[in-house]
Amino acid sequence: MADTPFHSTDACIIGAGPVGLFTVFQCGMVRIKCHVVDALDAVGGQCAALYPEKPIYDVPAQPSILAGDLISTLETQAAPFKPTYHLGQQVTGLTRQDNGRWLVETSKGVKIDCAVVIIAAGAGAFGPNRPPLDGIEQYESQSVFYFVKSREAFRNKRVVIAGGGDSAVDWALSLSELAASVSLIHRRPKFRCAPESAARLKELSEAGKIDLVVPYQLHSLEGENGQLSTVRVADLDGNTRDLEADVLLPFFGLATSLGPISSWGLEMDKSHIAINQGTSATSVEGIFAVGDVCSYPGKLKLILTGFAEAAQAAHHAYPLVHKGEALHFEHSTSMGTPGA
Amino acid sequence: MADTPFHSTDACIIGAGPVGLFTVFQCGMVRIKCHVVDALDAVGGQCAALYPEKPIYDVPAQPSILAGDLISTLETQAAPFKPTYHLGQQVTGLTRQDNGRWLVETSKGVKIDCAVVIIAAGAGAFGPNRPPLDGIEQYESQSVFYFVKSREAFRNKRVVIAGGGDSAVDWALSLSELAASVSLIHRRPKFRCAPESAARLKELSEAGKIDLVVPYQLHSLEGENGQLSTVRVADLDGNTRDLEADVLLPFFGLATSLGPISSWGLEMDKSHIAINQGTSATSVEGIFAVGDVCSYPGKLKLILTGFAEAAQAAHHAYPLVHKGEALHFEHSTSMGTPGA
Repeated sequence: MADTPFHSTDACIIGAGPVGLFTVFQCGMVRIKCHVVDALDAVGGQCAALYPEKPIYDVPAQPSILAGDLISTLETQAAPFKPTYHLGQQVTGLTRQDNGRWLVETSKGVKIDCAVVIIAAGAGAFGPNRPPLDGIEQYESQSVFYFVKSREAFRNKRVVIAGGGDSAVDWALSLSELAASVSLIHRRPKFRCAPESAARLKELSEAGKIDLVVPYQLHSLEGENGQLSTVRVADLDGNTRDLEADVLLPFFGLATSLGPISSWGLEMDKSHIAINQGTSATSVEGIFAVGDVCSYPGKLKLILTGFAEAAQAAHHAYPLVHKGEALHFEHSTSMGTPGA
Repeated sequence: MADTPFHSTDACIIGAGPVGLFTVFQCGMVRIKCHVVDALDAVGGQCAALYPEKPIYDVPAQPSILAGDLISTLETQAAPFKPTYHLGQQVTGLTRQDNGRWLVETSKGVKIDCAVVIIAAGAGAFGPNRPPLDGIEQYESQSVFYFVKSREAFRNKRVVIAGGGDSAVDWALSLSELAASVSLIHRRPKFRCAPESAARLKELSEAGKIDLVVPYQLHSLEGENGQLSTVRVADLDGNTRDLEADVLLPFFGLATSLGPISSWGLEMDKSHIAINQGTSATSVEGIFAVGDVCSYPGKLKLILTGFAEAAQAAHHAYPLVHKGEALHFEHSTSMGTPGA
């Protein structure tokens, strides 16, 4: 559905990760309507994009929940309040209008007029560090993947993994159970991973289940129509070797960036936005920050901490949205949810 | 199982409601062992004792969860850390020992030696306001109940309800669907309840489904061996009337009390314990407070806020429990849960 160019609402939330989604719910509970902008094409932030099948143990009253399921329940919980999502676009501009309201602009040219802005941007818009290989973009999403969304997609495939950290090693171990073959390329013989994982990697390598291609670096890709056939690697002397491959998984970490947010004149605490812990308010009236993007003395970077910050932001945004109206606060057990 | 008289542990948590239970989990994540004291005979606080079948909508990632289910999942989440529960007993004493550790004493004579105390006492130990009827205690738990744990227990029973508020009206409406008869006693014709409930009460009264006994007050009870047979009521002129009854449900509200906690010299904020929002620490070193019992500027009395306070208390209790050891903080996705 094509996004329309102009919207007017109560609150614009920047970031549709778990804390952004719960902010929609908390705002809804105090009758604040929300629009949500996210750089990714789907809601859920890193939980959905990076590790949907990873279990999380410290969400209260969820002894174990997969990151992807956490996102879908948070989306369900927010849904009665009918948020409008603007996905696949980054926030590019923020302007205070003459009437005191904010105008948020996105990279797709969408303009959102709103009373308050709530930044729930996590570590910022993020993306994988791409290896500098000519033409790699033509294979992306078809045979080159920076994240694993489902192990099953790699059953009986010839998998080449590049990288020396936990992600590279963990996925090499995991995919060796079902892939046709697994090669692991690293420019050093030593991997930065848990000792147990290193020991297991050695075992599987000796058993011929994982081909350790060290010390080598990615050199170039061959294939056609987006389908990879060969990954060429080179050692430090320039000697090359060809690996037959159906897929390449480069794990060189993530690059994150707050982008234009860091130029909005908000008081910062190193790379985080400083807030008042009691209100989630930033140094600029009408702008709040919640979740991993914000900071205050003693801040714990836990999802559950972000949830509490979201509740505070909603309650303190209320008087800016509903001017002159007192907030009659009720527990959900008494009032239910307005749209449910 | 008889409780032994002396225990030594890391943390003593006062209160086994939802926030107390989650405090066990958060402490466990940073290797703090817990004992938990609660006045009630079961964990769960008001959620379990007062409204286990009531849905809650604002627990993050739980679009709707029954209060009783919330408690059982929190208990499950805490279980790997093997907390010891001391139930059916109130805290009676707290003493700082010569070595700097605390000694907690309970009404059952149990003594708990610990490095830190975390108060998660909600509104305090609570109990029903009892009507002043001679011999009522002999019927309690058998045919006089102050809380409804399960509607089904009242199927085909002659139910007499006393009270004029929401609980009395809501249960009269609800139980009229399955009880043999429902009488509702109130000293005034007008009830303090939602307009929809009042309208529904009028309908059911006119249809003969609920016997409205107004304006009357409880006068005395008849029965034997704990089994009620008659509830006698009296009007303001002293005229009495007998109601045949299998059960009596008096709903005259709750009395709550912090008990001895309010004499521990902690800085208070009206009837709440003042804490530092950034650490959950009270004014006395080694004593923390979390959840509805604590207060700070802007405090929101939400379960999710208590969860975040629990995480902070655990992290700030760590250096008092593990002296000289740095806390290497990891997300649960990396480390899992130690006992799981």
